[in-house]
Amino acid sequence: MSPRRKADLHGNAPDSSPVALLIIDAINDLEFEGGSRMLTRAVRMARRIAALKTRTSKHGIPTIYVNDNFGRWRSDFRRTVSHCLENDVRGRPVAELLVPDEKDYFVLKPKHSGFYNTTLDLLLAYLRTETVIITGIATDACVLFTAADAYMRDLRVIVPSDCATALTPAAHRAALVHMRTVLKASVRASTSIDLGRGLDRRAATSSLRR
Amino acid sequence: MSPRRKADLHGNAPDSSPVALLIIDAINDLEFEGGSRMLTRAVRMARRIAALKTRTSKHGIPTIYVNDNFGRWRSDFRRTVSHCLENDVRGRPVAELLVPDEKDYFVLKPKHSGFYNTTLDLLLAYLRTETVIITGIATDACVLFTAADAYMRDLRVIVPSDCATALTPAAHRAALVHMRTVLKASVRASTSIDLGRGLDRRAATSSLRR
Amino acid sequence: MSPRRKADLHGNAPDSSPVALLIIDAINDLEFEGGSRMLTRAVRMARRIAALKTRTSKHGIPTIYVNDNFGRWRSDFRRTVSHCLENDVRGRPVAELLVPDEKDYFVLKPKHSGFYNTTLDLLLAYLRTETVIITGIATDACVLFTAADAYMRDLRVIVPSDCATALTPAAHRAALVHMRTVLKASVRASTSIDLGRGLDRRAATSSLRR
Amino acid sequence: MSPRRKADLHGNAPDSSPVALLIIDAINDLEFEGGSRMLTRAVRMARRIAALKTRTSKHGIPTIYVNDNFGRWRSDFRRTVSHCLENDVRGRPVAELLVPDEKDYFVLKPKHSGFYNTTLDLLLAYLRTETVIITGIATDACVLFTAADAYMRDLRVIVPSDCATALTPAAHRAALVHMRTVLKASVRASTSIDLGRGLDRRAATSSLRR
Repeated sequence: MSPRRKADLHGNAPDSSPVALLIIDAINDLEFEGGSRMLTRAVRMARRIAALKTRTSKHGIPTIYVNDNFGRWRSDFRRTVSHCLENDVRGRPVAELLVPDEKDYFVLKPKHSGFYNTTLDLLLAYLRTETVIITGIATDACVLFTAADAYMRDLRVIVPSDCATALTPAAHRAALVHMRTVLKASVRASTSIDLGRGLDRRAATSSLRR
Repeated sequence: MSPRRKADLHGNAPDSSPVALLIIDAINDLEFEGGSRMLTRAVRMARRIAALKTRTSKHGIPTIYVNDNFGRWRSDFRRTVSHCLENDVRGRPVAELLVPDEKDYFVLKPKHSGFYNTTLDLLLAYLRTETVIITGIATDACVLFTAADAYMRDLRVIVPSDCATALTPAAHRAALVHMRTVLKASVRASTSIDLGRGLDRRAATSSLRR
Repeated sequence: MSPRRKADLHGNAPDSSPVALLIIDAINDLEFEGGSRMLTRAVRMARRIAALKTRTSKHGIPTIYVNDNFGRWRSDFRRTVSHCLENDVRGRPVAELLVPDEKDYFVLKPKHSGFYNTTLDLLLAYLRTETVIITGIATDACVLFTAADAYMRDLRVIVPSDCATALTPAAHRAALVHMRTVLKASVRASTSIDLGRGLDRRAATSSLRR
Repeated sequence: MSPRRKADLHGNAPDSSPVALLIIDAINDLEFEGGSRMLTRAVRMARRIAALKTRTSKHGIPTIYVNDNFGRWRSDFRRTVSHCLENDVRGRPVAELLVPDEKDYFVLKPKHSGFYNTTLDLLLAYLRTETVIITGIATDACVLFTAADAYMRDLRVIVPSDCATALTPAAHRAALVHMRTVLKASVRASTSIDLGRGLDRRAATSSLRR
C-alpha cells in the first residue's frame, strides 16, 4: 500500500518477490454437498496447479497456501494437510498432488477471502508482491473473494483458468468472466503465462510507475 | 462488536465462553538483548501463568496462545514451541512451564498487537468472549498493545500483575499503571481473580445489557 | 461479530435497528466512460430507491449513504452532494431524487467495498444491524463488493433488483445471479420486500439463534 | 506497507509527502469531566500546534485532522468544527486557534486510535507518508493509541512534547516517556524539529532502504 517497510519483520526478513502464487483451499477434504461431483475436475485442476508450481518455483516465485481452517480453530495447516492425506478422505487425491514443501508459506483464513482477518496482506507487503496468481477452490467463492480483495488492494491479479474449479462448470465460467471484466484480471491457460520476461517487464513498469 | 453471529464458522462451531485467557509471546526463545536479565522474572511469571491456567481451565475458560511468528513466516505455532523446547535456547524453562494442550487455541501474530492482521478478533467474536485475561511478555510492549486493542474493541481487560513481565521492573510497573488508568483494566494479583461467581455475575450483567 | 457493545460510543448512543438501507455511490456525477448510456436506467433506479427509502423510513429503518469520495480526500459527503446537484453535472437528476435527510447516516469509502477502511462495520455493529438492503451503483462493482463483504461478516443481504444498475443490463443481471447463488442474497423487486412482519420475524428468529 | 500503489485512487491523485502532521481531537468541545482543568494547557498547546502548522505548511507538509465524531454519526467534520466555534462551548478558544484550511485533510475516527476503522492508513499510503508528527488531545489516550498504531505500521513517529496535553501533567509526561522508549518516537519541543534538511535527509535514507 505504501513505501514504508522495515528491513525485517520482528525477526528474519522474508524473501522478496514481485509475484506470488496463491493456492486457495486446495487442501480440502471435499466432504461437502456436491464435493463428489467436482472431484474429477478438482484432480485435473490439482495436476495443473502442481505443474504451474513447478514452473513458478524455478523462477523463484513463492507459493502461499491460503487455506480455510474449516472451523478447526485449534488446528494448524500441517494438521489440515495430514487430515486430507488420510485414507478415507474424498479430497485425498487432490491433496496428494499439492503437498506443501518446506519453503512454502501458508495462511489460515477463517472465512471466504484470504485477506479477511489474516496475515496475507502483511505477508504480501513484506514480500513486496505486486502480482498474485490465484488458483484453487472454488472459482466463484473463495477464489473470487480473494481476487476481489487483491484487486481492491491494487494488486495485479492473474487467474489461470485451468487452475481453479467450482461446483459447476457454469459457475466456474461466470466467475472467470467477472474477474476478467470487473477485476481486470488476466484470465488464461496456466501454460500460456510467461513467467520470465513477461512478468519481469511488467514488474519493472510498475516500479517506474511508483 | 455486534449481535450477528452464525451458528457455525465454516465448519464445526467453536466453544463459547464469556472469558478467555490470552498468553502473549511466552513461547519465546528470549534470544534478544536484555533477554538474559529478564529470565529469572520470566520463569517466575511462567509459574504464575501455569497456575492461573490450571484454575481457568477448571472453570471452562479457554486459553489462547497469541504468539509472535518471529519472522518465521513459514513456521507454525507447534514448530515455534518445539524450537523453544530445544536444549540450547534461553527461553526453554519458560516454554517448558507453558507447553500448550491439545485443547488450547493459538493465534500467530506478525506484529506487536495480537489483534493486528490476525484471526484473534474473529475468534473472540465466535467464542462470544467479553472479558480477556491478558498475560505474557512484555508488559509494556505486546501485552500493552494487545490490551489497548482489546479495550478499543469494548472487551473488558484483566491483567494479573504477576503474570506479565518486561525488560525492567520499572517498565512493567509503568505499563500496569497505564492499563489501569487509561484502559480501565482490572490489574491485580492472579490469585485474587475470582473466576467463579465474580466473573460470572459480571458476564450475566453484560448479557442483560445486550 | 460478537455480543460485546458499549452502551455508548464515545458520546451519544446511535439508534438501533436490525435492518439498514445502504445506498451505494448513487450520489455520483456519472462523469465517467459509459455514464451517459446508463443515465436513463440510473434515474429509474433512483426513483425506486427513493420510493423504497420512504417505506423503510416509515418502519424506522435507517438509511446509510455509502459513497465514494472520488479521490476528493479533502471533501466531505455534503460537498459531494452539492457538487452532484450542480447545473452541468450528468448525475444531477439521480442526486436530486436522493438528497439525504438530516437523519441519514453517511460513510465515505475510498475504494470499492463499503467496508474497506471505513466506519461501516462499526456503525452497523453499534446499530445492531443484522440485515442490510443494498442498493445503488454499480451492481457488479461497488454494490457487489459491498454485498460480498456483508455476507462474509454474517449479515443477511437483500438486493432489490430494481434499485441497482450497472454499465450494461447483462452485467447487472449476472451480478444479481451471483449474489443470489453465492452470497445467498434475497434478490427481488423492491415492492415485494415485506418490511413489516416479514423482516421482523426473521430478526426475531436470528435473535433466538444467538 | 508495500510498494503497490495506483497512480490515482478512484479519481484525482492526492498529494504526496513523506511527512504528515496529524492533529488529534483538538477540535473538541472539552465538555467532559476534567475538561475545565485542562483548558489553559489546551489553549497553550493549540498555540504551539498553530505555529507548527504554519511552519510545516511552508514545507509542503499536509495537515490531517484526525478527529473523534463524538458519537455524532450523522455529523461530518465541518459540523463538528462549527459546533466547537459556538459561543457557549468550553473548547472554543482551542478550536479558534486551529480552524482547518481548505487544503487540510480530515479523518473522522469512531474510537481512540486514528487508524481503527478509518481511512487514515490508506490516506497515508497514498500520500506515501513515512513519518507522522502527532499532536493533540490527550497525550495518554488518543494521541498514544494513534502513535502506537503508527509505529506498528512501520511509520516513524515524532511527538512534539508541547503540542499535546492530557488531563494531568503527570499523565502527559508518562505517555511521552512511553512513546520515546517503547515506540522509539522522537519526542522533543516543536521548535526544535528541523523540517528542512533534517527530515529530508531521513526521508532520503529510508528511500534507499526500500
